[in-house]
Amino acid sequence: MTATNTPIAWIGLGIMGTSMAGHLLDAGYPLTIHTRTRSRAEPLLARGAKWANSSQEAAENCEFVFSMVGMPAEVEEVFLGPLGVLKSKSSPRVIVNMATSSPTLDRKIAKIAKAQGIGFLDAPVSGGDLGARNATLSIMVGGEAWALSEVMSCFERMGKTIVHHGDVGSGQLCKVVNQLLVGANMVAAAEALMLSNETGLDSWKMLESVGGGAASSWTLTNLVPRMLRDDWDSGFSLAYLAKDLKIAVETCQELGLKLPGLALSQRLYSRLDELGHGAHGTQALLKLWKQAEASLAEG
Amino acid sequence: MTATNTPIAWIGLGIMGTSMAGHLLDAGYPLTIHTRTRSRAEPLLARGAKWANSSQEAAENCEFVFSMVGMPAEVEEVFLGPLGVLKSKSSPRVIVNMATSSPTLDRKIAKIAKAQGIGFLDAPVSGGDLGARNATLSIMVGGEAWALSEVMSCFERMGKTIVHHGDVGSGQLCKVVNQLLVGANMVAAAEALMLSNETGLDSWKMLESVGGGAASSWTLTNLVPRMLRDDWDSGFSLAYLAKDLKIAVETCQELGLKLPGLALSQRLYSRLDELGHGAHGTQALLKLWKQAEASLAEG
Repeated sequence: MTATNTPIAWIGLGIMGTSMAGHLLDAGYPLTIHTRTRSRAEPLLARGAKWANSSQEAAENCEFVFSMVGMPAEVEEVFLGPLGVLKSKSSPRVIVNMATSSPTLDRKIAKIAKAQGIGFLDAPVSGGDLGARNATLSIMVGGEAWALSEVMSCFERMGKTIVHHGDVGSGQLCKVVNQLLVGANMVAAAEALMLSNETGLDSWKMLESVGGGAASSWTLTNLVPRMLRDDWDSGFSLAYLAKDLKIAVETCQELGLKLPGLALSQRLYSRLDELGHGAHGTQALLKLWKQAEASLAEG
Repeated sequence: MTATNTPIAWIGLGIMGTSMAGHLLDAGYPLTIHTRTRSRAEPLLARGAKWANSSQEAAENCEFVFSMVGMPAEVEEVFLGPLGVLKSKSSPRVIVNMATSSPTLDRKIAKIAKAQGIGFLDAPVSGGDLGARNATLSIMVGGEAWALSEVMSCFERMGKTIVHHGDVGSGQLCKVVNQLLVGANMVAAAEALMLSNETGLDSWKMLESVGGGAASSWTLTNLVPRMLRDDWDSGFSLAYLAKDLKIAVETCQELGLKLPGLALSQRLYSRLDELGHGAHGTQALLKLWKQAEASLAEG
């Protein structure tokens, strides 16, 4: 159990990061924060967090550093950039990447950290904005056991399912599996809705009939109703899913593993992102189908 | 509310049919039964059901006829064959096909029935052997409202979600959507497990991390553990899913609708059936993957 007077740095205050860091603040940890757009830090600054001008500055004099940013390039910048965590003059004990990025990148960061005597964990999450707000995230951890036990008390403030999968990168690998399922279940749901529409069924009645049994999924229960209401708002922006599916495909390529369902969902989400729908929720897959069904099916 | 002294005929006593007919017997309906293999009728005969030598004979002197057989060819035989229900000398009021078959076939039977003054319903189910045993099936009904109200009391003995989708064939169309989802969710689950295996993750830990959130599905919760235990027993034989997916693909062809995820799952399940795995449970998809992954991915 880590004492709650241990100073902590938090980098990245999007919707997820703000909720997660807020739980650490609530628990009493002295918190230093940094994020690209300073205005996003205001709510936590008002609650007592301390501002830092860079990731490097945030990491100075903190024992643990958590980062929750968007894209792999930002992850690299936060940890390895000229003003990154690993340039700090005083060394933190453990640094943690909670963003979804490639296992390869995380292994690279871990290696450089280890040479400086710093523990590294990859700890991507699932559960979305709601899970972050309610501290019910699933946290998938890769890295050395001693490093995990150092920050376990912090993870317990953010999530309810915390699983140690193995070496550095294994948390990311589990998240890759998670995203494969998210993408594939959405393709299934969108196709089901297209078929239901085209055959003239009432899709709400269809959902009532199929939603409780062997055909059911989180996607069907939670996102198909949003499709039916023409609600394309983002709980999770599809640009991020497109990025995650690309990581999944690259991981398969490295393994020489061919997964045609994954290849399909990756292709569909890339196309949708290229067409400018990246800020929409993942359920906007249906839109693409309606627009360009034939070319998609053949592409 | 139909009086429980209304004489009923039941045709088809597989695992599902036996449970479903048993509920009608328990409710007190006088039941006449027929099935291809007489020995399968013994348990219900011992409980007071009456034997008939053909579908035609079963239908004589009964007001309602329910049929629950396996393949579309058998459905056609039961209703339209030389010893079929529609050859009976005395007309039943309503006849019901509860098997999954093509909407086109059911429309054909309905038309012939109507010419004889008989109501027809398509009423395929989901929920499997457990749903049949516990009378918790989802029953998807197509056909005229008057016919449904005649047999509603019987349906209520067998299922808990009974939805009227519209004209004859619409129950089958909804079941087609259901099976599209079942097939696609299984492809997703099998690919997730392959990726988990190949990356060296502990798949039980993977399930713990991904099973509770946005990646979750009935398949992941119920059938992936069976894959992990090398348990290929059938709750639902994949030969039937292969048949259902073929109906789904044919339905899309009639509509000019291209659904690449459905095309993939149909291709995989046909291959598996051709290779002689038809009697295995649908979770045996994983086996095929392990055997012939590259050719499947490219086929």
